[in-house]
Amino acid sequence: MKGLPSLERAVVVLSRFPGIGPKSARRMVYHLLRRGPEAARELIEALEGIRERICACERCHNLAEGALCWICADPGRDPTRLCVVEEPSDLLAMEKAGLFKGVYHVLGGRLSPLDGVGPDALHLASLEERLADSGFVELIVATNPTVEGEATAHFVAQLAEPHVARVTRLAHGMPMGGELEYLDESTLYQALVGRRDFRCGIGV
Amino acid sequence: MKGLPSLERAVVVLSRFPGIGPKSARRMVYHLLRRGPEAARELIEALEGIRERICACERCHNLAEGALCWICADPGRDPTRLCVVEEPSDLLAMEKAGLFKGVYHVLGGRLSPLDGVGPDALHLASLEERLADSGFVELIVATNPTVEGEATAHFVAQLAEPHVARVTRLAHGMPMGGELEYLDESTLYQALVGRRDFRCGIGV
Repeated sequence: MKGLPSLERAVVVLSRFPGIGPKSARRMVYHLLRRGPEAARELIEALEGIRERICACERCHNLAEGALCWICADPGRDPTRLCVVEEPSDLLAMEKAGLFKGVYHVLGGRLSPLDGVGPDALHLASLEERLADSGFVELIVATNPTVEGEATAHFVAQLAEPHVARVTRLAHGMPMGGELEYLDESTLYQALVGRRDFRCGIGV
Repeated sequence: MKGLPSLERAVVVLSRFPGIGPKSARRMVYHLLRRGPEAARELIEALEGIRERICACERCHNLAEGALCWICADPGRDPTRLCVVEEPSDLLAMEKAGLFKGVYHVLGGRLSPLDGVGPDALHLASLEERLADSGFVELIVATNPTVEGEATAHFVAQLAEPHVARVTRLAHGMPMGGELEYLDESTLYQALVGRRDFRCGIGV
């Protein structure tokens, strides 16, 4: 809209967020304008808060507000089990599931040679250091079940093998609540390969 | 998430936007964190831009960056036709349709006695002034087809009658691309009431 360059600028910036198209961005800006200057100030302060306070955990590269994240700082976590994830958001998904009580290592992405993401771009050196020093009994590889995620999983497993007795990965299979009929064949294939005996217990 | 209060704060603030749930808000924050401090700064600047520069047009109460909005400032618009809308976003929708070349008056909402929005809360006094002074030949009432929008339309029409020869409203009827089968009965009723002869021209 020619008449309002600063409004258009805000729409462009907001449209860059995942899941926010130009229409939603515009709706957000109107909402902001309707709610008055107080609303914009509040959002600006919140953004400044995350920009200034959120950093990476020194140990596991999770998001943190301080040297260590809330998981590394929690003495109640099992320090002998390590779970490797791609991003902090994956860590949060794991935490929501609630079963895992160990600690994490956030890689900061996945191997993707085509996009120029090699091993050096991920937090793999610090992972190897931790594995050599910390006496883990199990490493759970929880990368995403994508081509790049799988490649990253294999890389991590190889790296870990000399240091950790047990390297495991998340099971592939049917999502809960799904229906066989609508499942893609590779998932169903994996679910069959990974079939388990009835009454087998849950434990981490 | 107990460990990151400033992140949670940003999620709460973003969730207040229409169409943004806690999940999208969280995804936005992660995106911001992934893209680094530059992205947050850019968004903050864009927000400060709209907070500092966007104001209301002195004449029509549309959004503006200056005394007059880009429509009131455009000498090419037809000053004899006035279209009354509820919000600046409605004005933009009208502009996108592209047919109307007159000027606007933005009410800033709709009458809604239950929410405490009476005539004094809308820009009706300035509308009456404009109608008395500016020699309009037509007033198009383009409020939303809701109960409150219709009530507002009637109020505006009554206010305008002594000043303007022709007071019109947008047609109600079938949305383009819709199907009769899925149309609600009140829209179909209105479409039948408002039926027009074939080959009747389009003009404003």
